[in-house]
Amino acid sequence: MKIGIVGLGLIGGSLAIAFREKGLEVLGVSRKATTCETALAKGIVTRASTEMGLLQTADVVFLCAPIKAIVPTAQALIPHLKPTTILTDVASVKGEIVQAIAPLWPNFVGGHPMAGTAEQGIDAAIPGLFIDAPYVVTPTPETPPDAVETLKGLIALLQSRFYCCAPQIHDQAVAWISHLPVYVSASLIAACGSETNSEILQMAQAIASSGFRDTSRVGGGNPELGLMMAQGNRQALLNSLAGYRAQLDQAIALIEQEDWEAIANLLATTQQQRPSFL
Amino acid sequence: MKIGIVGLGLIGGSLAIAFREKGLEVLGVSRKATTCETALAKGIVTRASTEMGLLQTADVVFLCAPIKAIVPTAQALIPHLKPTTILTDVASVKGEIVQAIAPLWPNFVGGHPMAGTAEQGIDAAIPGLFIDAPYVVTPTPETPPDAVETLKGLIALLQSRFYCCAPQIHDQAVAWISHLPVYVSASLIAACGSETNSEILQMAQAIASSGFRDTSRVGGGNPELGLMMAQGNRQALLNSLAGYRAQLDQAIALIEQEDWEAIANLLATTQQQRPSFL
Repeated sequence: MKIGIVGLGLIGGSLAIAFREKGLEVLGVSRKATTCETALAKGIVTRASTEMGLLQTADVVFLCAPIKAIVPTAQALIPHLKPTTILTDVASVKGEIVQAIAPLWPNFVGGHPMAGTAEQGIDAAIPGLFIDAPYVVTPTPETPPDAVETLKGLIALLQSRFYCCAPQIHDQAVAWISHLPVYVSASLIAACGSETNSEILQMAQAIASSGFRDTSRVGGGNPELGLMMAQGNRQALLNSLAGYRAQLDQAIALIEQEDWEAIANLLATTQQQRPSFL
Repeated sequence: MKIGIVGLGLIGGSLAIAFREKGLEVLGVSRKATTCETALAKGIVTRASTEMGLLQTADVVFLCAPIKAIVPTAQALIPHLKPTTILTDVASVKGEIVQAIAPLWPNFVGGHPMAGTAEQGIDAAIPGLFIDAPYVVTPTPETPPDAVETLKGLIALLQSRFYCCAPQIHDQAVAWISHLPVYVSASLIAACGSETNSEILQMAQAIASSGFRDTSRVGGGNPELGLMMAQGNRQALLNSLAGYRAQLDQAIALIEQEDWEAIANLLATTQQQRPSFL
């Protein structure tokens, strides 16, 4: 089976390394000739080119462009594909992408490998990036089951944990456990930073420890990533934020009312619920 | 100098170990005779008793009872002290305790060693618990400066980081960086758990990873601890929750309005602010 990869960065490069390790032929396309040369020199791909035409013999093509470039890249690629080619992408939001590409290419299956590092670019590509990580595929009712099965087989080669659901289910699930925490955590930093009494602020900064450090971690991360989550998954994130605000308001009301039994129940419930997400 | 310690649990026991290591005499009082026996057998204290009378020769006494027992324990202890004895406590909330004990004992200095483990009891007491940890003391304008200086010297023996501020400053600072994160984090777990679509909930549970794990950690911790924070520091926590909710509402409004420039600025600011708390 011939694998095509468009975009040889952290994700595309690491997919190439993983499939080459399993003995598959990997054709790589990058906008930059220097990236193609690096990929060939490192043995990450079998062949590389800046031209989409390289992928006309590929059986499965992974679109690994940045999220905003996925749909235009698919549009540019499709004229070069043979009709049986299975097309998939790796973007972290699925609804809009699936809606845009599925009508253009019946053999399209949306996908989201949930792995990464803080690094970017082909030099960040590493072996084993996807081992034990979730890999969610998001077919529609019209997606050919064979296409999903083929992709599932490749995901097994990556040693990822395969999940399958509708694009909207995926988007709401990642809104809850990945995108919501960023805004919950950023608001914590912003709130602490908003203290106008300088003596309180300086004392807070001096004595903050592991509780603040962990709760604020994702809110103090890469701003571009947080922005992309909100732009790409806006409605699902707003749903989650509304649900979160309702829970917060309830906690505030219970503390105001000194309803300590209800606060004890709330904290006992969250202690019980958390392990089911880990 | 003779140190007295009332309450030989994790904090009291670890203070005893640290002062004994520096060659000080340590008199320990526990409600339980078995705890006294254990403390003596382990060499944690020089002398131990279930009677407060043991502390009549102590120069500095640390009240290490559970937070709700601090004031009644002080009331029971005070008749046994010589007038020059410096009294201090280790509770995590200072305003109400200082207000209650300072009028009863002029040489009282509120204190908060910010160290701990998940364990409790004398068997959890360990050497070095306070090294590099913040230790906040909270005198009032009436507290004798000599009493603060003596306590500062003992804190230096513990190798803790000494801070000094008014009780109200301490309470608002810990509300921001310790108590608020618990309720922010618990509300995240409660919100994710409130998803009524079982397919979304199951997918969220399956794919949650480090972002959810870190942001939810303190909200999934010991419920009794979280309850005590809200009970003991209610008004400061409500102040912090109100400030937090204002920040959250602003983030929601910006995402609703698709004001991406403002969201980018918000996330860039929180990325810059976070290191000043670490």
